[in-house]
Amino acid sequence: MIHRYTLKVRSYELDGNNHVNNANYLNYLEAARISFLEDIGINYKAFFIGGYRLFVTKICISYKIPAEVNDEITIETHPIKRRKTSGIFRQTLMRGTDVLTEADVTWVCVNEQGKPVPLPPEFDKPELYP
Amino acid sequence: MIHRYTLKVRSYELDGNNHVNNANYLNYLEAARISFLEDIGINYKAFFIGGYRLFVTKICISYKIPAEVNDEITIETHPIKRRKTSGIFRQTLMRGTDVLTEADVTWVCVNEQGKPVPLPPEFDKPELYP
Amino acid sequence: MIHRYTLKVRSYELDGNNHVNNANYLNYLEAARISFLEDIGINYKAFFIGGYRLFVTKICISYKIPAEVNDEITIETHPIKRRKTSGIFRQTLMRGTDVLTEADVTWVCVNEQGKPVPLPPEFDKPELYP
Amino acid sequence: MIHRYTLKVRSYELDGNNHVNNANYLNYLEAARISFLEDIGINYKAFFIGGYRLFVTKICISYKIPAEVNDEITIETHPIKRRKTSGIFRQTLMRGTDVLTEADVTWVCVNEQGKPVPLPPEFDKPELYP
Repeated sequence: MIHRYTLKVRSYELDGNNHVNNANYLNYLEAARISFLEDIGINYKAFFIGGYRLFVTKICISYKIPAEVNDEITIETHPIKRRKTSGIFRQTLMRGTDVLTEADVTWVCVNEQGKPVPLPPEFDKPELYP
Repeated sequence: MIHRYTLKVRSYELDGNNHVNNANYLNYLEAARISFLEDIGINYKAFFIGGYRLFVTKICISYKIPAEVNDEITIETHPIKRRKTSGIFRQTLMRGTDVLTEADVTWVCVNEQGKPVPLPPEFDKPELYP
Repeated sequence: MIHRYTLKVRSYELDGNNHVNNANYLNYLEAARISFLEDIGINYKAFFIGGYRLFVTKICISYKIPAEVNDEITIETHPIKRRKTSGIFRQTLMRGTDVLTEADVTWVCVNEQGKPVPLPPEFDKPELYP
Repeated sequence: MIHRYTLKVRSYELDGNNHVNNANYLNYLEAARISFLEDIGINYKAFFIGGYRLFVTKICISYKIPAEVNDEITIETHPIKRRKTSGIFRQTLMRGTDVLTEADVTWVCVNEQGKPVPLPPEFDKPELYP
Protein backbone atom coordinates (compact mmCIF):
# COMPACT_ATOMS: atom_id res chain seq x y z
CA MET A 1 0.00 0.00 0.00
CA ILE A 2 1.27 3.42 -0.96
CA HIS A 3 -0.41 6.32 0.73
CA ARG A 4 -0.88 9.59 -1.16
CA TYR A 5 -1.19 13.08 0.30
CA THR A 6 -1.59 16.15 -1.89
CA LEU A 7 -0.87 19.79 -1.28
CA LYS A 8 -0.37 23.00 -3.21
CA VAL A 9 2.75 25.10 -2.68
CA ARG A 10 2.08 28.56 -1.24
CA SER A 11 4.01 31.71 -2.13
CA TYR A 12 5.33 32.33 1.39
CA GLU A 13 7.05 28.94 1.41
CA LEU A 14 9.65 30.01 -1.17
CA ASP A 15 13.18 31.19 -0.55
CA GLY A 16 15.15 33.84 -2.43
CA ASN A 17 15.59 31.45 -5.37
CA ASN A 18 11.79 31.06 -5.69
CA HIS A 19 12.17 27.44 -4.60
CA VAL A 20 10.41 25.91 -1.65
CA ASN A 21 12.74 26.36 1.32
CA ASN A 22 14.47 23.15 2.47
CA ALA A 23 12.89 23.08 5.92
CA ASN A 24 9.36 23.29 4.53
CA TYR A 25 9.70 19.89 2.89
CA LEU A 26 9.99 18.38 6.36
CA ASN A 27 6.70 20.01 7.26
CA TYR A 28 5.14 18.57 4.10
CA LEU A 29 6.47 15.10 4.90
CA GLU A 30 5.16 15.29 8.46
CA ALA A 31 1.68 16.26 7.25
CA ALA A 32 1.76 13.28 4.88
CA ARG A 33 2.80 10.86 7.65
CA ILE A 34 0.06 12.10 9.98
CA SER A 35 -2.46 11.66 7.16
CA PHE A 36 -1.06 8.15 6.56
CA LEU A 37 -1.44 7.22 10.22
CA GLU A 38 -5.00 8.52 10.36
CA ASP A 39 -5.95 6.72 7.18
CA ILE A 40 -4.77 3.37 8.58
CA GLY A 41 -6.74 3.99 11.77
CA ILE A 42 -4.09 5.39 14.12
CA ASN A 43 -5.56 8.39 15.85
CA TYR A 44 -2.52 10.19 17.19
CA LYS A 45 -4.46 11.81 20.03
CA ALA A 46 -5.66 8.40 21.32
CA PHE A 47 -2.13 7.08 20.88
CA PHE A 48 -0.76 10.03 22.87
CA ILE A 49 -3.34 9.74 25.64
CA GLY A 50 -2.51 6.01 25.85
CA GLY A 51 0.99 7.07 26.87
CA TYR A 52 2.76 6.45 23.58
CA ARG A 53 4.75 8.75 21.33
CA LEU A 54 6.14 8.33 17.83
CA PHE A 55 9.47 10.14 17.61
CA VAL A 56 11.44 10.68 14.43
CA THR A 57 15.06 9.74 15.04
CA LYS A 58 16.54 10.21 11.58
CA ILE A 59 15.69 11.79 8.24
CA CYS A 60 17.76 11.47 5.06
CA ILE A 61 16.34 13.72 2.39
CA SER A 62 17.55 14.24 -1.18
CA TYR A 63 16.56 17.37 -3.01
CA LYS A 64 16.44 16.61 -6.74
CA ILE A 65 14.17 19.16 -8.42
CA PRO A 66 12.90 22.24 -6.59
CA ALA A 67 9.17 22.73 -6.00
CA GLU A 68 7.79 26.12 -7.01
CA VAL A 69 4.80 28.28 -6.22
CA ASN A 70 1.37 26.81 -6.96
CA ASP A 71 2.87 23.39 -7.74
CA GLU A 72 0.43 20.58 -7.07
CA ILE A 73 2.48 18.11 -5.07
CA THR A 74 1.77 14.50 -4.20
CA ILE A 75 3.64 12.81 -1.38
CA GLU A 76 3.74 9.03 -1.52
CA THR A 77 4.48 7.28 1.78
CA HIS A 78 5.16 3.61 2.36
CA PRO A 79 7.08 1.52 4.92
CA ILE A 80 10.39 0.02 3.82
CA LYS A 81 11.59 -1.48 7.09
CA ARG A 82 10.09 -2.57 10.37
CA ARG A 83 11.73 -3.63 13.62
CA LYS A 84 10.19 -4.33 17.01
CA THR A 85 10.00 -0.76 18.30
CA SER A 86 10.88 1.19 15.17
CA GLY A 87 10.51 1.44 11.42
CA ILE A 88 11.39 3.40 8.31
CA PHE A 89 9.06 5.19 5.92
CA ARG A 90 10.08 6.13 2.43
CA GLN A 91 8.43 9.32 1.28
CA THR A 92 8.54 10.57 -2.29
CA LEU A 93 7.46 14.04 -3.23
CA MET A 94 6.17 14.13 -6.81
CA ARG A 95 5.03 16.79 -9.27
CA GLY A 96 3.19 14.76 -11.87
CA THR A 97 5.63 11.96 -12.63
CA ASP A 98 8.73 13.94 -11.59
CA VAL A 99 10.35 12.98 -8.31
CA LEU A 100 11.28 16.27 -6.64
CA THR A 101 12.45 14.98 -3.29
CA GLU A 102 12.92 11.61 -1.64
CA ALA A 103 13.30 10.92 2.05
CA ASP A 104 13.76 7.99 4.40
CA VAL A 105 12.30 8.72 7.80
CA THR A 106 13.14 6.53 10.80
CA TRP A 107 10.66 6.49 13.67
CA VAL A 108 10.61 4.87 17.06
CA CYS A 109 7.73 4.21 19.43
CA VAL A 110 8.48 5.37 22.98
CA ASN A 111 6.58 5.48 26.24
CA GLU A 112 6.07 8.59 28.37
CA GLN A 113 9.55 8.15 29.84
CA GLY A 114 11.05 8.18 26.34
CA LYS A 115 12.01 4.48 26.45
CA PRO A 116 11.56 2.55 23.17
CA VAL A 117 8.64 0.13 23.43
CA PRO A 118 6.72 -2.02 20.94
CA LEU A 119 3.61 -0.46 19.50
CA PRO A 120 0.54 -1.60 21.47
CA PRO A 121 -1.36 -4.25 19.45
CA GLU A 122 -4.34 -2.01 18.66
CA PHE A 123 -2.00 0.44 16.91
CA ASP A 124 0.35 -2.10 15.33
CA LYS A 125 -1.36 -2.05 11.94
CA PRO A 126 -0.27 -4.24 9.02
CA GLU A 127 0.23 -1.11 6.88
CA LEU A 128 3.27 -0.27 9.03
CA TYR A 129 5.08 -3.32 7.60
CA PRO A 130 6.74 -3.40 4.16
CA MET B 1 38.24 25.46 11.98
CA ILE B 2 34.89 24.84 13.61
CA HIS B 3 32.35 27.61 13.28
CA ARG B 4 29.92 28.25 16.12
CA TYR B 5 26.47 29.84 15.89
CA THR B 6 24.25 30.30 18.92
CA LEU B 7 20.53 30.71 19.28
CA LYS B 8 17.83 30.46 21.91
CA VAL B 9 14.79 28.25 21.35
CA ARG B 10 11.49 30.13 21.22
CA SER B 11 8.17 28.85 22.56
CA TYR B 12 6.39 28.84 19.18
CA GLU B 13 8.98 26.44 17.76
CA LEU B 14 7.75 23.53 19.90
CA ASP B 15 5.41 20.75 18.88
CA GLY B 16 2.76 19.01 20.98
CA ASN B 17 5.47 17.15 22.91
CA ASN B 18 7.10 20.46 23.92
CA HIS B 19 10.08 19.55 21.76
CA VAL B 20 11.40 21.68 18.93
CA ASN B 21 9.58 20.53 15.80
CA ASN B 22 11.74 18.51 13.40
CA ALA B 23 11.55 20.99 10.52
CA ASN B 24 12.78 23.87 12.66
CA TYR B 25 16.17 22.23 13.09
CA LEU B 26 16.69 22.64 9.35
CA ASN B 27 16.05 26.34 9.73
CA TYR B 28 18.56 26.47 12.58
CA LEU B 29 21.17 24.64 10.51
CA GLU B 30 20.62 26.97 7.56
CA ALA B 31 21.09 30.04 9.73
CA ALA B 32 24.34 28.54 11.02
CA ARG B 33 25.61 27.83 7.50
CA ILE B 34 24.84 31.35 6.32
CA SER B 35 26.66 32.72 9.37
CA PHE B 36 29.59 30.40 8.56
CA LEU B 37 29.76 31.63 4.97
CA GLU B 38 29.65 35.26 6.03
CA ASP B 39 32.31 34.75 8.65
CA ILE B 40 34.74 33.27 6.09
CA GLY B 41 34.08 36.18 3.74
CA ILE B 42 31.42 34.79 1.41
CA ASN B 43 28.74 37.38 1.02
CA TYR B 44 25.82 35.43 -0.36
CA LYS B 45 24.30 38.46 -2.09
CA ALA B 46 27.53 39.12 -4.04
CA PHE B 47 27.72 35.42 -4.80
CA PHE B 48 24.13 35.45 -6.07
CA ILE B 49 24.60 38.59 -8.15
CA GLY B 50 27.73 37.00 -9.63
CA GLY B 51 25.42 34.33 -11.06
CA TYR B 52 26.17 31.56 -8.58
CA ARG B 53 23.92 29.61 -6.26
CA LEU B 54 24.64 27.17 -3.43
CA PHE B 55 21.98 24.47 -3.43
CA VAL B 56 21.55 21.84 -0.76
CA THR B 57 21.15 18.46 -2.42
CA LYS B 58 21.02 16.18 0.60
CA ILE B 59 20.58 16.34 4.36
CA CYS B 60 20.93 13.40 6.75
CA ILE B 61 19.89 14.47 10.22
CA SER B 62 19.82 12.39 13.43
CA TYR B 63 17.63 13.52 16.29
CA LYS B 64 19.20 12.33 19.55
CA ILE B 65 17.93 14.54 22.37
CA PRO B 66 15.09 17.03 21.87
CA ALA B 67 15.68 20.74 22.30
CA GLU B 68 13.21 22.54 24.55
CA VAL B 69 11.97 26.06 25.13
CA ASN B 70 14.59 28.66 26.15
CA ASP B 71 17.44 26.21 25.52
CA GLU B 72 20.67 27.97 24.59
CA ILE B 73 21.87 26.08 21.54
CA THR B 74 25.23 26.12 19.82
CA ILE B 75 25.57 24.82 16.27
CA GLU B 76 29.05 23.76 15.26
CA THR B 77 29.70 23.64 11.51
CA HIS B 78 32.74 22.29 9.71
CA PRO B 79 33.49 20.79 6.29
CA ILE B 80 34.09 17.04 6.14
CA LYS B 81 34.35 16.54 2.38
CA ARG B 82 35.12 18.64 -0.66
CA ARG B 83 34.85 17.85 -4.36
CA LYS B 84 35.21 20.11 -7.38
CA THR B 85 31.71 21.55 -7.45
CA SER B 86 30.33 20.28 -4.16
CA GLY B 87 31.06 19.54 -0.53
CA ILE B 88 29.65 18.29 2.74
CA PHE B 89 29.27 20.15 6.02
CA ARG B 90 28.84 18.39 9.31
CA GLN B 91 26.68 20.35 11.70
CA THR B 92 26.29 19.48 15.37
CA LEU B 93 23.63 21.04 17.50
CA MET B 94 24.76 21.18 21.14
CA ARG B 95 23.20 22.14 24.47
CA GLY B 96 26.23 22.56 26.69
CA THR B 97 28.21 19.41 26.01
CA ASP B 98 25.18 17.33 24.95
CA VAL B 99 24.82 16.61 21.27
CA LEU B 100 21.14 17.05 20.50
CA THR B 101 21.21 16.66 16.73
CA GLU B 102 23.81 15.89 14.11
CA ALA B 103 23.49 16.48 10.38
CA ASP B 104 25.53 16.04 7.22
CA VAL B 105 24.57 18.60 4.61
CA THR B 106 25.66 18.19 0.99
CA TRP B 107 25.84 21.32 -1.14
CA VAL B 108 26.61 21.97 -4.77
CA CYS B 109 27.58 25.19 -6.52
CA VAL B 110 25.49 25.84 -9.65
CA ASN B 111 25.25 28.60 -12.20
CA GLU B 112 22.07 30.47 -13.11
CA GLN B 113 21.06 27.59 -15.38
CA GLY B 114 21.34 25.17 -12.47
CA LYS B 115 24.42 23.42 -13.89
CA PRO B 116 27.09 22.37 -11.34
CA VAL B 117 30.19 24.55 -11.65
CA PRO B 118 33.33 25.06 -9.55
CA LEU B 119 33.20 27.88 -7.06
CA PRO B 120 34.77 31.01 -8.56
CA PRO B 121 38.27 31.52 -7.06
CA GLU B 122 37.32 34.57 -4.99
CA PHE B 123 34.71 32.49 -3.15
CA ASP B 124 36.66 29.24 -2.96
CA LYS B 125 37.91 29.79 0.57
CA PRO B 126 40.24 27.37 2.39
CA GLU B 127 37.66 27.05 5.21
CA LEU B 128 35.45 25.09 2.79
CA TYR B 129 38.00 22.25 2.80
CA PRO B 130 38.32 19.66 5.60
CA MET C 1 -14.61 42.40 -7.77
CA ILE C 2 -13.89 40.01 -4.93
CA HIS C 3 -10.88 37.77 -5.40
CA ARG C 4 -10.96 34.24 -3.98
CA TYR C 5 -7.99 32.13 -2.93
CA THR C 6 -8.41 28.65 -1.51
CA LEU C 7 -6.16 26.51 0.65
CA LYS C 8 -6.36 23.47 2.88
CA VAL C 9 -5.10 23.62 6.47
CA ARG C 10 -2.15 21.34 7.19
CA SER C 11 -1.55 19.51 10.47
CA TYR C 12 1.75 21.26 11.27
CA GLU C 13 0.01 24.65 11.25
CA LEU C 14 -1.92 23.93 14.46
CA ASP C 15 -1.05 25.01 17.97
CA GLY C 16 -1.55 23.12 21.23
CA ASN C 17 -5.32 23.80 21.04
CA ASN C 18 -5.51 22.13 17.61
CA HIS C 19 -6.33 25.52 16.12
CA VAL C 20 -4.34 27.17 13.35
CA ASN C 21 -1.70 29.28 15.07
CA ASN C 22 -2.35 33.04 14.92
CA ALA C 23 0.73 33.89 12.89
CA ASN C 24 -0.12 31.41 10.14
CA TYR C 25 -3.21 33.40 9.21
CA LEU C 26 -0.93 36.24 8.16
CA ASN C 27 0.87 33.83 5.84
CA TYR C 28 -2.47 32.74 4.41
CA LEU C 29 -3.53 36.36 3.86
CA GLU C 30 -0.22 37.19 2.16
CA ALA C 31 -0.58 34.24 -0.23
CA ALA C 32 -4.09 35.45 -1.09
CA ARG C 33 -2.89 39.02 -1.76
CA ILE C 34 -0.08 37.83 -4.01
CA SER C 35 -2.57 35.68 -5.91
CA PHE C 36 -4.88 38.71 -6.18
CA LEU C 37 -2.08 40.88 -7.59
CA GLU C 38 -1.09 38.24 -10.12
CA ASP C 39 -4.68 37.72 -11.20
CA ILE C 40 -5.14 41.43 -11.94
CA GLY C 41 -1.90 41.43 -13.94
CA ILE C 42 0.63 42.73 -11.41
CA ASN C 43 3.68 40.54 -11.64
CA TYR C 44 5.51 41.24 -8.42
CA LYS C 45 8.90 40.37 -9.88
CA ALA C 46 8.49 42.93 -12.69
CA PHE C 47 7.23 45.42 -10.13
CA PHE C 48 10.28 44.76 -7.93
CA ILE C 49 12.73 44.99 -10.83
CA GLY C 50 11.09 48.27 -11.83
CA GLY C 51 12.24 49.63 -8.47
CA TYR C 52 8.95 49.47 -6.62
CA ARG C 53 7.93 47.71 -3.44
CA LEU C 54 4.59 47.12 -1.78
CA PHE C 55 5.02 47.26 1.98
CA VAL C 56 2.36 46.36 4.50
CA THR C 57 2.18 49.09 7.14
CA LYS C 58 -0.73 47.89 9.25
CA ILE C 59 -2.83 44.80 9.81
CA CYS C 60 -5.91 44.60 12.05
CA ILE C 61 -7.07 41.02 12.29
CA SER C 62 -10.03 39.60 14.23
CA TYR C 63 -10.05 35.93 15.10
CA LYS C 64 -13.68 34.78 15.32
CA ILE C 65 -13.77 31.00 14.79
CA PRO C 66 -10.60 28.90 14.76
CA ALA C 67 -9.60 27.01 11.62
CA GLU C 68 -8.75 23.34 12.12
CA VAL C 69 -6.80 20.63 10.34
CA ASN C 70 -7.92 19.77 6.80
CA ASP C 71 -10.35 22.70 6.71
CA GLU C 72 -10.95 23.94 3.19
CA ILE C 73 -10.53 27.69 3.50
CA THR C 74 -11.46 30.46 1.08
CA ILE C 75 -9.92 33.89 1.46
CA GLU C 76 -11.85 36.73 -0.13
CA THR C 77 -9.86 39.88 -0.87
CA HIS C 78 -11.15 43.23 -2.04
CA PRO C 79 -10.04 46.87 -1.76
CA ILE C 80 -11.97 49.10 0.64
CA LYS C 81 -9.90 52.26 0.43
CA ARG C 82 -7.44 53.85 -1.96
CA ARG C 83 -5.21 56.89 -1.60
CA LYS C 84 -2.46 58.21 -3.84
CA THR C 85 0.38 56.01 -2.62
CA SER C 86 -1.49 53.54 -0.41
CA GLY C 87 -4.63 51.51 0.05
CA ILE C 88 -6.47 49.06 2.26
CA PHE C 89 -7.56 45.53 1.44
CA ARG C 90 -10.23 43.73 3.40
CA GLN C 91 -9.59 40.01 3.60
CA THR C 92 -12.14 37.54 4.90
CA LEU C 93 -11.22 33.98 5.69
CA MET C 94 -14.20 31.68 5.22
CA ARG C 95 -15.01 28.03 5.87
CA GLY C 96 -18.13 27.50 3.81
CA THR C 97 -20.31 30.43 4.81
CA ASP C 98 -18.69 30.90 8.24
CA VAL C 99 -16.37 33.88 8.63
CA LEU C 100 -13.40 32.60 10.64
CA THR C 101 -11.16 35.64 10.48
CA GLU C 102 -11.38 39.14 9.07
CA ALA C 103 -8.48 41.50 8.45
CA ASP C 104 -7.87 44.99 7.10
CA VAL C 105 -4.44 45.27 5.54
CA THR C 106 -2.91 48.65 4.75
CA TRP C 107 -0.25 48.80 2.06
CA VAL C 108 1.94 51.53 0.68
CA CYS C 109 3.91 51.68 -2.56
CA VAL C 110 7.51 52.79 -2.01
CA ASN C 111 10.55 53.24 -4.20
CA GLU C 112 13.92 51.60 -3.61
CA GLN C 113 14.77 54.28 -1.03
CA GLY C 114 11.61 53.40 0.92
CA LYS C 115 9.88 56.70 0.04
CA PRO C 116 6.11 56.47 -0.63
CA VAL C 117 5.39 57.00 -4.33
CA PRO C 118 2.32 56.57 -6.54
CA LEU C 119 2.00 53.24 -8.31
CA PRO C 120 3.41 53.51 -11.83
CA PRO C 121 0.50 53.69 -14.35
CA GLU C 122 1.09 50.21 -15.79
CA PHE C 123 0.57 48.71 -12.32
CA ASP C 124 -2.20 51.05 -11.15
CA LYS C 125 -5.03 48.66 -12.00
CA PRO C 126 -8.72 49.53 -11.51
CA GLU C 127 -9.12 46.45 -9.29
CA LEU C 128 -7.05 48.24 -6.63
CA TYR C 129 -9.88 50.75 -6.18
CA PRO C 130 -13.06 50.07 -4.13
CA MET D 1 5.39 46.98 35.08
CA ILE D 2 6.76 46.58 31.58
CA HIS D 3 7.98 43.12 30.68
CA ARG D 4 10.96 42.75 28.33
CA TYR D 5 11.74 39.80 26.07
CA THR D 6 14.77 39.76 23.80
CA LEU D 7 15.56 37.81 20.66
CA LYS D 8 17.93 37.91 17.72
CA VAL D 9 16.59 37.86 14.16
CA ARG D 10 17.61 34.79 12.16
CA SER D 11 18.38 34.77 8.44
CA TYR D 12 15.56 32.40 7.49
CA GLU D 13 12.98 34.82 8.90
CA LEU D 14 13.54 37.37 6.14
CA ASP D 15 11.50 37.88 3.01
CA GLY D 16 12.69 38.87 -0.47
CA ASN D 17 13.29 42.44 0.73
CA ASN D 18 15.65 41.19 3.48
CA HIS D 19 13.11 42.32 6.04
CA VAL D 20 11.57 40.08 8.66
CA ASN D 21 8.40 38.67 7.11
CA ASN D 22 5.17 40.16 8.51
CA ALA D 23 3.86 36.91 9.96
CA ASN D 24 7.03 36.28 11.97
CA TYR D 25 6.38 39.32 14.11
CA LEU D 26 3.26 37.60 15.41
CA ASN D 27 5.42 34.66 16.46
CA TYR D 28 7.80 37.05 18.21
CA LEU D 29 4.92 38.75 20.03
CA GLU D 30 3.49 35.40 21.12
CA ALA D 31 6.84 34.30 22.55
CA ALA D 32 7.02 37.57 24.48
CA ARG D 33 3.51 37.14 25.89
CA ILE D 34 4.21 33.58 27.02
CA SER D 35 7.39 34.79 28.70
CA PHE D 36 5.38 37.58 30.35
CA LEU D 37 2.81 35.12 31.69
CA GLU D 38 5.47 32.81 33.05
CA ASP D 39 7.33 35.65 34.68
CA ILE D 40 4.22 36.78 36.57
CA GLY D 41 3.61 33.20 37.73
CA ILE D 42 1.07 31.94 35.19
CA ASN D 43 2.15 28.51 34.09
CA TYR D 44 0.21 27.95 30.90
CA LYS D 45 0.26 24.17 31.25
CA ALA D 46 -1.35 24.35 34.72
CA PHE D 47 -3.80 26.90 33.34
CA PHE D 48 -4.65 24.57 30.45
CA ILE D 49 -5.01 21.50 32.66
CA GLY D 50 -7.28 23.54 34.92
CA GLY D 51 -9.65 23.81 31.96
CA TYR D 52 -8.85 27.37 30.92
CA ARG D 53 -7.59 28.81 27.65
CA LEU D 54 -6.34 32.25 26.67
CA PHE D 55 -7.43 33.01 23.12
CA VAL D 56 -6.31 35.98 21.10
CA THR D 57 -9.37 37.59 19.51
CA LYS D 58 -7.79 40.61 17.82
CA ILE D 59 -4.39 41.96 16.84
CA CYS D 60 -3.73 45.41 15.39
CA ILE D 61 -0.11 45.68 14.36
CA SER D 62 1.71 48.64 12.79
CA TYR D 63 4.91 48.02 10.89
CA LYS D 64 7.08 51.14 11.15
CA ILE D 65 10.71 50.15 10.54
CA PRO D 66 11.66 46.69 9.26
CA ALA D 67 13.77 44.36 11.39
CA GLU D 68 16.78 42.84 9.64
CA VAL D 69 19.06 39.85 10.07
CA ASN D 70 20.98 39.61 13.34
CA ASP D 71 19.07 42.54 14.83
CA GLU D 72 18.88 42.35 18.61
CA ILE D 73 15.22 42.97 19.34
CA THR D 74 13.49 43.79 22.61
CA ILE D 75 9.76 43.33 22.94
CA GLU D 76 8.09 45.32 25.68
CA THR D 77 4.72 44.05 26.86
CA HIS D 78 2.29 45.72 29.23
CA PRO D 79 -1.47 45.66 29.82
CA ILE D 80 -3.44 48.71 28.66
CA LYS D 81 -6.99 47.53 29.34
CA ARG D 82 -8.70 44.94 31.52
CA ARG D 83 -12.29 43.77 31.56
CA LYS D 84 -13.90 40.89 33.42
CA THR D 85 -13.04 38.09 31.03
CA SER D 86 -10.65 39.84 28.66
CA GLY D 87 -7.87 42.36 28.31
CA ILE D 88 -5.51 44.12 25.93
CA PHE D 89 -1.74 44.00 25.88
CA ARG D 90 0.34 46.61 24.12
CA GLN D 91 3.53 45.17 22.69
CA THR D 92 6.34 47.28 21.31
CA LEU D 93 9.16 45.80 19.32
CA MET D 94 12.32 47.86 19.72
CA ARG D 95 15.80 47.90 18.23
CA GLY D 96 17.73 50.01 20.67
CA THR D 97 15.50 53.07 21.09
CA ASP D 98 13.81 52.68 17.68
CA VAL D 99 10.24 51.40 17.69
CA LEU D 100 10.03 48.95 14.80
CA THR D 101 6.55 47.58 15.35
CA GLU D 102 3.70 48.22 17.73
CA ALA D 103 0.75 45.96 18.39
CA ASP D 104 -2.37 45.85 20.53
CA VAL D 105 -3.37 42.29 21.30
CA THR D 106 -6.81 41.49 22.71
CA TRP D 107 -7.21 38.26 24.66
CA VAL D 108 -10.12 36.51 26.29
CA CYS D 109 -10.17 33.77 28.89
CA VAL D 110 -12.46 30.88 27.92
CA ASN D 111 -13.36 27.54 29.42
CA GLU D 112 -13.07 24.20 27.65
CA GLN D 113 -16.36 24.85 25.87
CA GLY D 114 -14.98 28.11 24.49
CA LYS D 115 -17.28 30.27 26.65
CA PRO D 116 -15.72 33.49 28.05
CA VAL D 117 -15.17 33.20 31.80
CA PRO D 118 -13.33 35.27 34.41
CA LEU D 119 -9.76 34.20 35.13
CA PRO D 120 -9.70 31.93 38.19
CA PRO D 121 -8.39 33.91 41.20
CA GLU D 122 -5.05 32.07 41.38
CA PHE D 123 -4.25 33.22 37.83
CA ASP D 124 -5.78 36.69 38.04
CA LYS D 125 -2.49 38.44 38.76
CA PRO D 126 -2.21 42.21 39.37
CA GLU D 127 0.27 42.48 36.48
CA LEU D 128 -2.62 41.80 34.07
CA TYR D 129 -4.16 45.17 35.02
CA PRO D 130 -2.96 48.53 33.64
